[in-house]
Amino acid sequence: MITTDVQLRPQPGSVADLNAQPGFGAENLPYASFAPYGEDPRLGVRIGNKILGVAAAVEYDGRRSQALVNAVLGQNLDGLLKAGRPIWDELRAMLTQQVTSAEAASSLEVHDLRDVSLFMPFTVADYVDFYASEHHATNVGRIFRPDQRPLTTNWKYLPIGYHGRSGTIVASGTEIVRPKGLRPEPKGSPTFGPSRKLDIEAEVGFVIGGAAPQGEVKLADTENHIFGTVLVNDWSARDIQAFEYVPLGPFLGKSFATSISPWVVPMAALSCASIEPPTRDADLAEYLDDGSARASGLDISLEISINNKLVSRPPFASMYWTPAQMLAHMTVNGASLRPGDFFASGTVSGPGRDQRGSLLELTWNGRDPLTLTDGGKMCFLEDGAEVVIRATAPGPSGTSICFGEVAGRIVPAT
Amino acid sequence: MITTDVQLRPQPGSVADLNAQPGFGAENLPYASFAPYGEDPRLGVRIGNKILGVAAAVEYDGRRSQALVNAVLGQNLDGLLKAGRPIWDELRAMLTQQVTSAEAASSLEVHDLRDVSLFMPFTVADYVDFYASEHHATNVGRIFRPDQRPLTTNWKYLPIGYHGRSGTIVASGTEIVRPKGLRPEPKGSPTFGPSRKLDIEAEVGFVIGGAAPQGEVKLADTENHIFGTVLVNDWSARDIQAFEYVPLGPFLGKSFATSISPWVVPMAALSCASIEPPTRDADLAEYLDDGSARASGLDISLEISINNKLVSRPPFASMYWTPAQMLAHMTVNGASLRPGDFFASGTVSGPGRDQRGSLLELTWNGRDPLTLTDGGKMCFLEDGAEVVIRATAPGPSGTSICFGEVAGRIVPAT
Repeated sequence: MITTDVQLRPQPGSVADLNAQPGFGAENLPYASFAPYGEDPRLGVRIGNKILGVAAAVEYDGRRSQALVNAVLGQNLDGLLKAGRPIWDELRAMLTQQVTSAEAASSLEVHDLRDVSLFMPFTVADYVDFYASEHHATNVGRIFRPDQRPLTTNWKYLPIGYHGRSGTIVASGTEIVRPKGLRPEPKGSPTFGPSRKLDIEAEVGFVIGGAAPQGEVKLADTENHIFGTVLVNDWSARDIQAFEYVPLGPFLGKSFATSISPWVVPMAALSCASIEPPTRDADLAEYLDDGSARASGLDISLEISINNKLVSRPPFASMYWTPAQMLAHMTVNGASLRPGDFFASGTVSGPGRDQRGSLLELTWNGRDPLTLTDGGKMCFLEDGAEVVIRATAPGPSGTSICFGEVAGRIVPAT
Repeated sequence: MITTDVQLRPQPGSVADLNAQPGFGAENLPYASFAPYGEDPRLGVRIGNKILGVAAAVEYDGRRSQALVNAVLGQNLDGLLKAGRPIWDELRAMLTQQVTSAEAASSLEVHDLRDVSLFMPFTVADYVDFYASEHHATNVGRIFRPDQRPLTTNWKYLPIGYHGRSGTIVASGTEIVRPKGLRPEPKGSPTFGPSRKLDIEAEVGFVIGGAAPQGEVKLADTENHIFGTVLVNDWSARDIQAFEYVPLGPFLGKSFATSISPWVVPMAALSCASIEPPTRDADLAEYLDDGSARASGLDISLEISINNKLVSRPPFASMYWTPAQMLAHMTVNGASLRPGDFFASGTVSGPGRDQRGSLLELTWNGRDPLTLTDGGKMCFLEDGAEVVIRATAPGPSGTSICFGEVAGRIVPAT
């Protein structure tokens, strides 16, 4: 891993110097798929308010292996994800050098972010969603199963997860059509119609690179497979979900759309965000036991805004299970891993009332409405509601690493 | 749809005439991805014990549109699935004509099946597994939740389903490594190790073609999206599943491997297998209400053999929910559909004890062992066990439509 434990000092006149912007300095360098107006999509890397064409940067360097050249030729991250860790590190070192060098500045392909469109940053292979926040799982248990202990017996022994729908993962900005489905009624049969309890789930997602055809990725090896992170809004129709989810789990209540931020922040940019995860309350199987490992939690601070009002600040630092444990778990049964596989943490909720990552929790299933900026009350998402999730993590020497936002607006059911 | 309600009469000297074999006549014509030894994979169609190269057949015809030519050029069905229903029908009509024509016989690319390898017939996009057999769901409820009503409240209102792992769907013949995971223990904490309750699930799977970017595929339109069917063995580790599945459903107990038959039987070959589904016990929402529609059930007879002993004959005709209902349900919330999406029926179990589609049911969770050919007893799958699932459906005029088998052998945990 490239450790950036001291702040990078861009040369005067370098791209990083000319376009300095907090959160998007040379210590971050998130990737996206972008296109200048009327041109084909390509892989880019962000510095300040600019985006650099990566293939052009590799070509300018002129000394790179054919493997690296090929890895960045496509429309998005797919080639780079396949290429594997050594190529990721080589490319990041090269880009860091270029954006901080005055000499390279005039030779790079640089676009203003206002002049480009952004797309899905990679092709999603399989998508797994976890349930790794103890605070979230406890809240949901209290709301949905008030007569039972909030955490199921298995919860502290393994990171609970399930597969979601890859084909409906969309880039930030995509309009979200209110889903229809069967909704439970207090008395009698369920009725069919638009969801009355449309919700958000603020999550952090992890993009997989390299391949593990036999599965069984060990905790210590997970850092060779997690390429980077995005922000996730796992839109959820709570009424549809509540009626359908026993016994095989969520399906149509989730599968209509999942939004992700267009910027993939490389794990290498998060080396200063490492923290110790919470103390473990149960003896863990060896494949999950990170007791002697170095800190593998991540100190990422999320913010959720609805209609421009900040409604919550979920702390990823409070997650019980770490990304490394999630990946080790999802492959321990021999399930193969492909480049483009994607997993999300599940809703990030902290212990505080203003740290909850879903409206289900923030309004306690509609009992305690939120007051919005215009004075209106809200329990779940109305048509027209706009949700934006943002996040930052600590970077080297007091800098910060900014995630691109994931935004979405609700449009009426068809 | 091409209806083959009268038996096709191949001309003397045609490929179909020279290679006549029950179940694989000109009324079937299932597709596969195949390669003669040392050559590249390509799309093929089966007649008797032979396989025809499809691209070569289209080229020989010489009068086909560029859209059809392009649709069959790839290594498997992917191009054809994208091309959509009119192209599927056009190709099937052309192939039917060619294999029954004496004139074409000597000009086609024909291989003996013994001389070729078969591969995954298509690239799986999203994979959904349903739970559509009332007999299976009732048995599982009785075994796993003996203190509750066997069918959950939602069961008769919607076809319950969940997403499975696309990346671990493998072609028949792939060895199945016994998965490891956390197993519940009668007393105390779970233990980690190889599954002690490795099971089968005999299912029928449906391959999607065409695209429905906005979802909401209507019942009447499902026939334009279901290209064909395969047999499925959804291997299941019952102990791992039992510990993990509350509240978000099966995950590692299923995700290690799902085997499918290499032959995709086109829906057009199953026109004589249409039957009425069972009477509906609950008022269905309009999108699921097939009361006035023509018969959309399928009369497919499955057979399960373990170590060469026939252990069960599950009847697909007994399924409560039809494939059309499953597809309408999985898209009613607006979830988009992509070519290569795949859904399976869930375990096919009939009302009889010898019609159950899993060992969980056949041995009642190990209480009633099966006696194998060698006199040995079996509750769940031992290392070395070989499982073969076969199926047939009625064809025109007393013929039968044979599915390719799906076979797999258990090898010890790593």
